[in-house]
Amino acid sequence: MKGPVLVVGTGLLGTSVALACKQRGVEVLLRDVAPEHVRTASGLGAGKPDDGSAAQLVVVAVPPDHLGAEIAAALAGSAAVVTDVGSVKSQPLAQLAALGVGDLKRYVGSHPMAGSERSGPLAASATLFEGRPWAITAHADAAPEAIALVRELIELCGAVPVELSPADHDRAVARVSHLPQLMSSLVAGRLAAAPSTHLALAGQGVRDVTRIAGSDPTLWKQIITANADAVLAVLDEMKERLERLRGSVAEADAEAIASLLAEGVAGTAAIPAKHGGVARPMASVFVSLPDQAGELARLFAHVGTLGVSIEDVHIDHDPGRPVGLVELVVEACEAETLVTSLTEHGWSVHP
Amino acid sequence: MKGPVLVVGTGLLGTSVALACKQRGVEVLLRDVAPEHVRTASGLGAGKPDDGSAAQLVVVAVPPDHLGAEIAAALAGSAAVVTDVGSVKSQPLAQLAALGVGDLKRYVGSHPMAGSERSGPLAASATLFEGRPWAITAHADAAPEAIALVRELIELCGAVPVELSPADHDRAVARVSHLPQLMSSLVAGRLAAAPSTHLALAGQGVRDVTRIAGSDPTLWKQIITANADAVLAVLDEMKERLERLRGSVAEADAEAIASLLAEGVAGTAAIPAKHGGVARPMASVFVSLPDQAGELARLFAHVGTLGVSIEDVHIDHDPGRPVGLVELVVEACEAETLVTSLTEHGWSVHP
Repeated sequence: MKGPVLVVGTGLLGTSVALACKQRGVEVLLRDVAPEHVRTASGLGAGKPDDGSAAQLVVVAVPPDHLGAEIAAALAGSAAVVTDVGSVKSQPLAQLAALGVGDLKRYVGSHPMAGSERSGPLAASATLFEGRPWAITAHADAAPEAIALVRELIELCGAVPVELSPADHDRAVARVSHLPQLMSSLVAGRLAAAPSTHLALAGQGVRDVTRIAGSDPTLWKQIITANADAVLAVLDEMKERLERLRGSVAEADAEAIASLLAEGVAGTAAIPAKHGGVARPMASVFVSLPDQAGELARLFAHVGTLGVSIEDVHIDHDPGRPVGLVELVVEACEAETLVTSLTEHGWSVHP
Repeated sequence: MKGPVLVVGTGLLGTSVALACKQRGVEVLLRDVAPEHVRTASGLGAGKPDDGSAAQLVVVAVPPDHLGAEIAAALAGSAAVVTDVGSVKSQPLAQLAALGVGDLKRYVGSHPMAGSERSGPLAASATLFEGRPWAITAHADAAPEAIALVRELIELCGAVPVELSPADHDRAVARVSHLPQLMSSLVAGRLAAAPSTHLALAGQGVRDVTRIAGSDPTLWKQIITANADAVLAVLDEMKERLERLRGSVAEADAEAIASLLAEGVAGTAAIPAKHGGVARPMASVFVSLPDQAGELARLFAHVGTLGVSIEDVHIDHDPGRPVGLVELVVEACEAETLVTSLTEHGWSVHP
């Protein structure tokens, strides 16, 4: 990667790509319809405003509705390789065909799986893509050297390239991203008018299921309509299962219900470990902390001395109470060591 | 609470109730169809095996299918107040009526919203119910002194009593617990047969939505069939919305899609803050740690000196890489203080 890289659209994704490039010493030019976004991104050290210099690579990071037009403009305006970071990959190709853009050798679409909840350049980070999957979706006519340059960008950002055709990518995200988003939104929507005594019974489960339902409807309506065919296919699968489930509940067929639930258990096991690789069995160790602020530091200091790697942490703590419950997620084979040592050192631990 | 409390069923919930009682100096008797569970619970300090002493309160903590029979046996076998901790509250009353148990003055159902993922006495903890909602579902004939004693148990366990009628409770959990569980399972079920290249694109969203889909189908088939009427009502609402969503996607009606998504945003806002109270706006501060084990302790030590209360922590870390990304969730009004101070002290921070 010699650079410069021209980033078109300095929101969360565009500015994060720019920061990652700059951190690796690659020159970056910034362009956005909102000049204040360019100023903000530039102020963060993400590059300088586009001065018309010839770019080696253009990264189009604009909302889904504008992808086709901006990719076409980038191809027409330079001799650079062009990629985009949009959530849907077939629609931009259809838009380019409709715009009469015939030569697409220099265009290779891509899609980093990161950062959809926050937005704007201030939320950007050079490490946003660290260890994340990043789909690279070359169409049939893409030049090998263009594919290689986009792959170089992905690796420079610390992400893990995953090769898929544009259509296959769209089917994949319909299933692993768009369907979960839509079902989370529908479940959350059923809570909006519920009485407060009903909502008072909400536990961690419904909070987890509905977390992404807080995402921006303006962005998501574009993503869903841009991927309508693949989304319809998974919605039809969901509708068929929902009707089957409804029938089983109506008939009090507990075994049929258990069978649908068991499919879900198999599905959770099929999700790979974060950052790829084989999923390792995890276990949770719960520690009660009498005084949260200082005790949390002391807890991590102790865990640090054991060499046990903490995979995740959850804190369940009521600001009005002196006791906080901390869940440490560790590899199952390390849980016993952790419990034994923490107990020996006087922590209130339960597995 | 004078005690003794007789706990029938020494699984996660029963043993946790027993531990909480013992911690407050209340004598506990333990009974279970599996003698090894009684031995384990007793070994944990949860009480002694039931010796037939007269109990003041019986807590029935058995699987849903056995609730009616065990509550009836407890009422017939003693003069104690009887409660249960089952997930569904109308069905046990119907079972008691079917068994011809006429006098229910001493029975008051209840349901702590805690701890369904782990199971068995070894997973128990005296602090399991700390700050959690605990529904108290008195039927029309329940004696006021029986209700008061169950409320005393709930408060002794550190939980927050929420009063609901049995039918209202069942409608509430259908919406805030059973529907999220079922939809999580159906979404996860759609992943089971997906190609690994598709699953490689899985991000945090689908992981959150499907986490509870890993729950035990044997337990959940009992809960769902026990609450069939209320579950059918919410499944029908879901089916109507799913069909409407499908129609909007097929017609490329982006505004109709956005409107369904906006209902979901409103629903997430309706969920009360953990442990009740008004939801306060939260913000996330992301910190990149070059070396996780020791740095995590150093980070919390620094945060501790600022007096900023950490509401939750998420760690996104690839064991194969030296950099880990830590998300600190704090009250929105404290985020700037935290970012400024961490940055000044050399941490790699992004808001």
